[in-house]
Amino acid sequence: MGTRNIKLTVSYDGINYSGWQDQPGKRTIQGLLQQAIGDLTGVFTKVNGASRTDAGVSALGQVANFVLDSRIPTENLLKAINHRLPRDIVVTEVSEAEPTFDASGSAGSKLYRYKIFTGRKRNVLQTRNCWHRPGKLDAAAMDAAAKMLVGKHDFKSFAAAADKRQTSVRTVMQCRITEEDKWIHIDIEADRFLYNMVRNIVGTLVEIGRGRWKPEKIKEILEAKNRTAAGPTAPPEGLCLMWIKY
Amino acid sequence: MGTRNIKLTVSYDGINYSGWQDQPGKRTIQGLLQQAIGDLTGVFTKVNGASRTDAGVSALGQVANFVLDSRIPTENLLKAINHRLPRDIVVTEVSEAEPTFDASGSAGSKLYRYKIFTGRKRNVLQTRNCWHRPGKLDAAAMDAAAKMLVGKHDFKSFAAAADKRQTSVRTVMQCRITEEDKWIHIDIEADRFLYNMVRNIVGTLVEIGRGRWKPEKIKEILEAKNRTAAGPTAPPEGLCLMWIKY
Repeated sequence: MGTRNIKLTVSYDGINYSGWQDQPGKRTIQGLLQQAIGDLTGVFTKVNGASRTDAGVSALGQVANFVLDSRIPTENLLKAINHRLPRDIVVTEVSEAEPTFDASGSAGSKLYRYKIFTGRKRNVLQTRNCWHRPGKLDAAAMDAAAKMLVGKHDFKSFAAAADKRQTSVRTVMQCRITEEDKWIHIDIEADRFLYNMVRNIVGTLVEIGRGRWKPEKIKEILEAKNRTAAGPTAPPEGLCLMWIKY
Repeated sequence: MGTRNIKLTVSYDGINYSGWQDQPGKRTIQGLLQQAIGDLTGVFTKVNGASRTDAGVSALGQVANFVLDSRIPTENLLKAINHRLPRDIVVTEVSEAEPTFDASGSAGSKLYRYKIFTGRKRNVLQTRNCWHRPGKLDAAAMDAAAKMLVGKHDFKSFAAAADKRQTSVRTVMQCRITEEDKWIHIDIEADRFLYNMVRNIVGTLVEIGRGRWKPEKIKEILEAKNRTAAGPTAPPEGLCLMWIKY
């Protein structure tokens, strides 16, 4: 019996977790998935995720893969894993992948959505996964600024200072603002993301939305290539990984 | 300076709590409100709630009152209490009440909403506060049954066996089913509720929705005046106290 490469699509409410990545003594998504699969197969199984979402960040379409040495059909595998997971982590799809498929390395682009609730009174059941930031924001100005981020740029100003990757050049395919009632959604699709990139972009767009900066400020920030030029980091609970293209 | 009677409207996501009522060593809504107010005033303050919601049950419009010996304006009180509460408990209104106002005793009627998600795949961010029960339910049959509950009846068959109140006669003002996509909402308004009454009604309506019983079964269940005649108790996480009329 040969080993199989299994692809998982996973959704989770990140609020109660210390992020994706397994860490000793912490409740993490990767840790709980590995525990569930290990429980099922009897052997420790490393689960390779496409995106290392931070503590508090949610996902509807996180993707991961792992090597399995068992003939269990994918449909049964899905049920058996979900049975061993808490209610707020759900595997939504299980499929057979090519041996070369690598959830992280093979990813084409990802879309993150960031939700801001601008109303004063918060409905606790509808505003769990958002940044509650009371006060009107100028969505048109934010959208004008967002458009300037689309394309291939050096996003160093939007990367956490601790991000030491060789290059901070990334391609943003779309960056758009939608407003409905007291909600603002910021959708950002890119080939890869720098550490804290979405939350730093959101924090900056909010500075523009509240009138501190003009939309044109984005160009200046990109050119600065320095984290201090951009706005603050938006809180994690508003962020959600929507999907990953392969 | 005389004492004041303060009325609070409170909303909370009940999933992480052991219900409304203060209990030693448990995280409860009443306990956390009392702690927040005590913290603020320096004296232990009993908070009197209109409804003792169970563990896992949420509320958008729970009402409570407490006696306050301070001149702090209501608007500041709201902010100061919220500042001392976790993110998933929010005081939405604070007002001055008549000295005779009693959140529990003065209540006219209450409306509870119960949410069922009937789809197979669950979106973790939208299906936190619901009963995830995959499989089609006949909403028209459920609604026909629900109509038979409206009016003044002895609801003994729908009360937890442990409920030892003198009378189980209650008046249901409305009981209706609404269906949208894969969601079924059950709204029940009554003058007062017996212990587990909504969850037992929901459990029974689901038996009708899945075809085990005809809608007319409701009459038989009401006449039996025996808990064993009705359906099972629906899980707490689908239940939410929407509002209370005074």
